[in-house]
Amino acid sequence: MKTNQQLIDDRARLLGPNVSTFYDNPIHMIKGEGVWVWDAQGRKYLDCYNNVPHVGHCHAKVVEAICQQASTLNTHTRYLHEGIVRYVDKLTATFAEPLSTAIMTCTGSEANDIALRMAEAATGQRGIIATDHTYHGNTTMVAKLSNSNKSDFGGESHVRFVPAPDSYRPAYWLDGGLPEGMTHAQAFAEQVKLKIKELQASEHGFAGMIICPFFANEGFPTLEAGFLDETVAAVKAAGGIVIADEVQPGFGRIGTHMWGHQRVGIVPDVVTLGKPMGNGHPVGGVVTSMALMTQFREAFRYFNTFGGNPVSCAAAEAVLDVMAAEGLMEQAMEVGDYARAGLQALADKHVCIGDVRGSGMFFGAEMVLDRNTKEPATAFTKRVANAMREEGVILNFLGINYNALKIRPNLQFQKQHADVMLQTLDKVLSKVVLQP
Amino acid sequence: MKTNQQLIDDRARLLGPNVSTFYDNPIHMIKGEGVWVWDAQGRKYLDCYNNVPHVGHCHAKVVEAICQQASTLNTHTRYLHEGIVRYVDKLTATFAEPLSTAIMTCTGSEANDIALRMAEAATGQRGIIATDHTYHGNTTMVAKLSNSNKSDFGGESHVRFVPAPDSYRPAYWLDGGLPEGMTHAQAFAEQVKLKIKELQASEHGFAGMIICPFFANEGFPTLEAGFLDETVAAVKAAGGIVIADEVQPGFGRIGTHMWGHQRVGIVPDVVTLGKPMGNGHPVGGVVTSMALMTQFREAFRYFNTFGGNPVSCAAAEAVLDVMAAEGLMEQAMEVGDYARAGLQALADKHVCIGDVRGSGMFFGAEMVLDRNTKEPATAFTKRVANAMREEGVILNFLGINYNALKIRPNLQFQKQHADVMLQTLDKVLSKVVLQP
Repeated sequence: MKTNQQLIDDRARLLGPNVSTFYDNPIHMIKGEGVWVWDAQGRKYLDCYNNVPHVGHCHAKVVEAICQQASTLNTHTRYLHEGIVRYVDKLTATFAEPLSTAIMTCTGSEANDIALRMAEAATGQRGIIATDHTYHGNTTMVAKLSNSNKSDFGGESHVRFVPAPDSYRPAYWLDGGLPEGMTHAQAFAEQVKLKIKELQASEHGFAGMIICPFFANEGFPTLEAGFLDETVAAVKAAGGIVIADEVQPGFGRIGTHMWGHQRVGIVPDVVTLGKPMGNGHPVGGVVTSMALMTQFREAFRYFNTFGGNPVSCAAAEAVLDVMAAEGLMEQAMEVGDYARAGLQALADKHVCIGDVRGSGMFFGAEMVLDRNTKEPATAFTKRVANAMREEGVILNFLGINYNALKIRPNLQFQKQHADVMLQTLDKVLSKVVLQP
Repeated sequence: MKTNQQLIDDRARLLGPNVSTFYDNPIHMIKGEGVWVWDAQGRKYLDCYNNVPHVGHCHAKVVEAICQQASTLNTHTRYLHEGIVRYVDKLTATFAEPLSTAIMTCTGSEANDIALRMAEAATGQRGIIATDHTYHGNTTMVAKLSNSNKSDFGGESHVRFVPAPDSYRPAYWLDGGLPEGMTHAQAFAEQVKLKIKELQASEHGFAGMIICPFFANEGFPTLEAGFLDETVAAVKAAGGIVIADEVQPGFGRIGTHMWGHQRVGIVPDVVTLGKPMGNGHPVGGVVTSMALMTQFREAFRYFNTFGGNPVSCAAAEAVLDVMAAEGLMEQAMEVGDYARAGLQALADKHVCIGDVRGSGMFFGAEMVLDRNTKEPATAFTKRVANAMREEGVILNFLGINYNALKIRPNLQFQKQHADVMLQTLDKVLSKVVLQP
């Protein structure tokens, strides 16, 4: 077995520069089971981070489904097969009308790339609004939706960014803070309306808005009921399409609902899916109405060789079946509530914890240098994540200021696992010095 | 088990309109093994078409590699793992210097989408040249490389098309035919030079050319040695990047060489990989030099969640191992030569066969209404493909005029399989009436 340094050297030689790894001391992972992973030295870690192995690392039912189908047939959708229609039937049953049709892809990036074309097919325009602290994927066109991407594929961009919502420090949110007499939701909608007008006045026109309805990368702010109502109304009034990127909150992760947009109480025009969909098998998808699907299919040619192949469908179907059979969404809610209560209890002891928030198996705590000023403890949060890794607990950080602990375990995470995480965090927060 | 009509109705309801199937009478495929597939009625077909199950449908070694790794660990490249470096080491060993680094993706489309950004990173320009009868994939940006795509994502396109080469009817190739005193290769290079100038004079500038070095979708013309030399020299002289899309010819399919660009005798700057790479498991990749990889990695942020995951790497590595252990590239050459000789023999009997060409496990015959005028028998070719399917042999058609039989079996195809295909084709060509 190669040493970590040998692997790091091999990566530099074979993959090139800037291929990032997590943590100052990267992990050479060799085995996973349930919520646990093991490194090459045999050390066991509690995985509180990885959302791709959604129903647990190497879940036997998903592995069995993959092996069974891979040894039987693996082709594409230009032949008939029961797998894809059985899966899409089960999948669309979890959505409200009119979200009844789907395209299967291999990644969430491919799904969002299609969603942009659906917006164009429906509106004849291409201008898109996203938040200024999000990530929707890696294709050339989808990468443009990230304000933080360094470079862009030529030309003036058709994407406009609105400030990501920030429930914990709304005063910091916009230049000059929240406008007098406005709710957070109203202020967000006003920003969106401004950008709609800007796009309408541009050569691009206005095609729609893409949003993670849980604002995961933005730091999963706590949002009042109906937070997106006025925003969605404004987008629709302007003839635009609402795309909900459910790659992170979807598939029951947030516990209260199967999908993030259901939690926030909207019905998007297009929903995109990715990471957890096949428990690690490369599968993504786009769900929309028959009307919009028809507009897309009439405007664009689209075929995806691997998309909707029998093995991918078998993996994805097994994920839905396991979730139902094991009651994993309900467990996510219960364990999430327990874990957040535990984090809240830690806040009594550790002044660095400024805010505890999240839902189900996507939660965390915002770290601050001072609870009054709410100054983000960004460098400290990174040190905490590294210290947790050294203590055998895998988590990470995110948010507008990269100072929110990102705790996003797979759905096998139970109260005893939360206890391990909380005890370790208590230990780490007692050791790592709170300073910039 | 659902009937074909039920499945067709389910697809219309769940996948929307215009999701195409092969043949007038689609096949409900339920099992595959080696070069054989079975439909839901238990009928066995000889698969002379599907290139994705590259080393054979459900090859036991590939299935075993997938199952073994899927039941052990499946994560991503932000942790260290031996799988990706072992695979990229084996993969890049099949390329000439300086092609020594790789990015792993999930699809060939994602690979080509990256390749376009590499060209931009290297040149600061974005104008791309492709042929007018090609297909490189399905992302918004890559779909622009197909002249045949109905719609485009806004704005004036940065892609320029050159006429696809046509070895069988060079007189039909350009308006007015092949210019006096020019070889086919020179005429092709002249077209490329014209488009380079056009792009240089445009706002886009010239970034490079993307080409399938076997011109697979263009109808795999027979090309003289050094056919692309002058073209490549022109692209390089103009500071452009040559991207070889090896999704179709690559991985030894053409028998004489591991890669199509090696057969035609060029060293591209970027090579893209897809379909056959994981025998059906969704995996693709981009191979390039350290210099270009560094330029890309410094210009763009790129991470692919599923790209290079341990299971995908295990599947891809098993494909390379099986190819070597079973001598499949060598077999592809031998059986390809045998099958093409058989097609040539059929030409003595069937006047519809105007030209037989190809290499290894990618070959076919161009169908004409008249050997003197070489008028394409497009509708006839489609009827032949449908008749072959009814006789239990799966193949298809392609080319500039969609009149070339596309025979592209997986690498388990042997002489006795070629005999079955040839006997069936003889029977079908004796029955189907040669008329427009």
